[in-house]
Amino acid sequence: MKTPAQARFAPVPQRTVAPGRVTLVGAGPGDPDLLTVRAAKVLTSAQVVLYDHLVSDAVLALVPPSAERIYVGKESGCHAMPQATIAATLVRLARTGRPVVRLKGGDPYVFGRGGEEVEALVDAGVPFEVVPGITAAQGMSAMAGMPLTHRAHASSVVFATGHGKEGGAEPDWIALARPRQTAVFYMGMAALPRICERLIAHGLPADTPAAVVERATTPQQRVIVATLQSLPAVAALHGASAPALVVVGSVVSLHERLRQAGVATAAAPSLQAA
Amino acid sequence: MKTPAQARFAPVPQRTVAPGRVTLVGAGPGDPDLLTVRAAKVLTSAQVVLYDHLVSDAVLALVPPSAERIYVGKESGCHAMPQATIAATLVRLARTGRPVVRLKGGDPYVFGRGGEEVEALVDAGVPFEVVPGITAAQGMSAMAGMPLTHRAHASSVVFATGHGKEGGAEPDWIALARPRQTAVFYMGMAALPRICERLIAHGLPADTPAAVVERATTPQQRVIVATLQSLPAVAALHGASAPALVVVGSVVSLHERLRQAGVATAAAPSLQAA
Repeated sequence: MKTPAQARFAPVPQRTVAPGRVTLVGAGPGDPDLLTVRAAKVLTSAQVVLYDHLVSDAVLALVPPSAERIYVGKESGCHAMPQATIAATLVRLARTGRPVVRLKGGDPYVFGRGGEEVEALVDAGVPFEVVPGITAAQGMSAMAGMPLTHRAHASSVVFATGHGKEGGAEPDWIALARPRQTAVFYMGMAALPRICERLIAHGLPADTPAAVVERATTPQQRVIVATLQSLPAVAALHGASAPALVVVGSVVSLHERLRQAGVATAAAPSLQAA
Repeated sequence: MKTPAQARFAPVPQRTVAPGRVTLVGAGPGDPDLLTVRAAKVLTSAQVVLYDHLVSDAVLALVPPSAERIYVGKESGCHAMPQATIAATLVRLARTGRPVVRLKGGDPYVFGRGGEEVEALVDAGVPFEVVPGITAAQGMSAMAGMPLTHRAHASSVVFATGHGKEGGAEPDWIALARPRQTAVFYMGMAALPRICERLIAHGLPADTPAAVVERATTPQQRVIVATLQSLPAVAALHGASAPALVVVGSVVSLHERLRQAGVATAAAPSLQAA
């Protein structure tokens, strides 16, 4: 407690503002109905939103027109804003005292670099919250009818990236080429031939069911089913392109039966049997 | 097209009812705010709901009082209703023409046997929809501050079970004991000593950070941090009990810095360094 004298002669405090909270929000796979209730609440009351390439227009449409929108990019290999700049921008905006929303495709803590951004916030003393989101593999799983685990097919599921940039020169093929496991590769299109070749080289049978799921969970979703051996050729035949997930494992064989109404399947039967 | 004669002498069709759609809904980790928007919509208009042990009271409270609620159990080792009976009940209820909600903790396609139930629906010609949910590992990740992937720590994340019942006698330790990977074991408490021992035997360093997260994402969430070597003893010291996730990997070391406000941590510093 200050004495009256201290109070009288104390310097006038600088006008400081308590930093606003930054909320990292998982935007899910695209359909606003697949946002969490919490995410939808945060978005509909947002004042300033930093968002990625992977966030859909339909999700962004929940943000009030009055809110400030800042695009920070992140198309593969073409970042509109470097990661360090994104973190610095979050800190700077929070220090104006406003609540800040950081909107990331999928789940912020699954290939979203959410951890790095939260570390920067902690270092800067900015309060934060993380709202998880449905990650692309989950949305794909429901729509395309490929359960990620299944007692008859897969006792575990692993998420990896095709490019190996997420913290390593090369995907860990030993971990990924396991039987009775579903492997989902994010950003897998560019590396598709290599993924299939390496998994076979590390012991997965060449006839292991494998699929490319383009634009998972969107109305444009397309599923291309083949085997590890044939998938690169079949995908090329159908002109498959990013963004796409690559799914490897016995659960892929359930797609024909379990896919939801309206899901388009492309397959070359002669190649599929290869 | 029928001719008039055919139409006149055709037998009166049996009074049949088109089967109602079964919606498998992921209930998420417990907090109703972590339901998807779609799941919340389905629940608030439900007429009949079959639900599991793992579904929280707060989520169930969204179901209208007028709706029929059917508990189908599934506590570890003590099923109120066998899986085949659950599937048969879903089909029977759907054939009354009512829409049926099948509510499952987490995500229906991640250790939820959702695949088996949907297969039964397909066999019976019952239309279905699957609504994904935030799985326990994601909720834990956000709340406990352990990103599932992180460029500096883990380039992949794998979900497995501790008991090995999900389709195999034994977890695939070779897949699970990998460096630069986060491994999350569902239902891991009963097998905790064995999980830690097997992972070390398969090559993970004994000082790999590892944690038990009790009642993940609930207000009672508690995080017990140690190393693979010391976790069974530290967890026992703190009286850790199911339901709990076991998390293994370098991201566990981020917990102290990145955990969200209000998350309780228990650790025995002398053992933690072991």
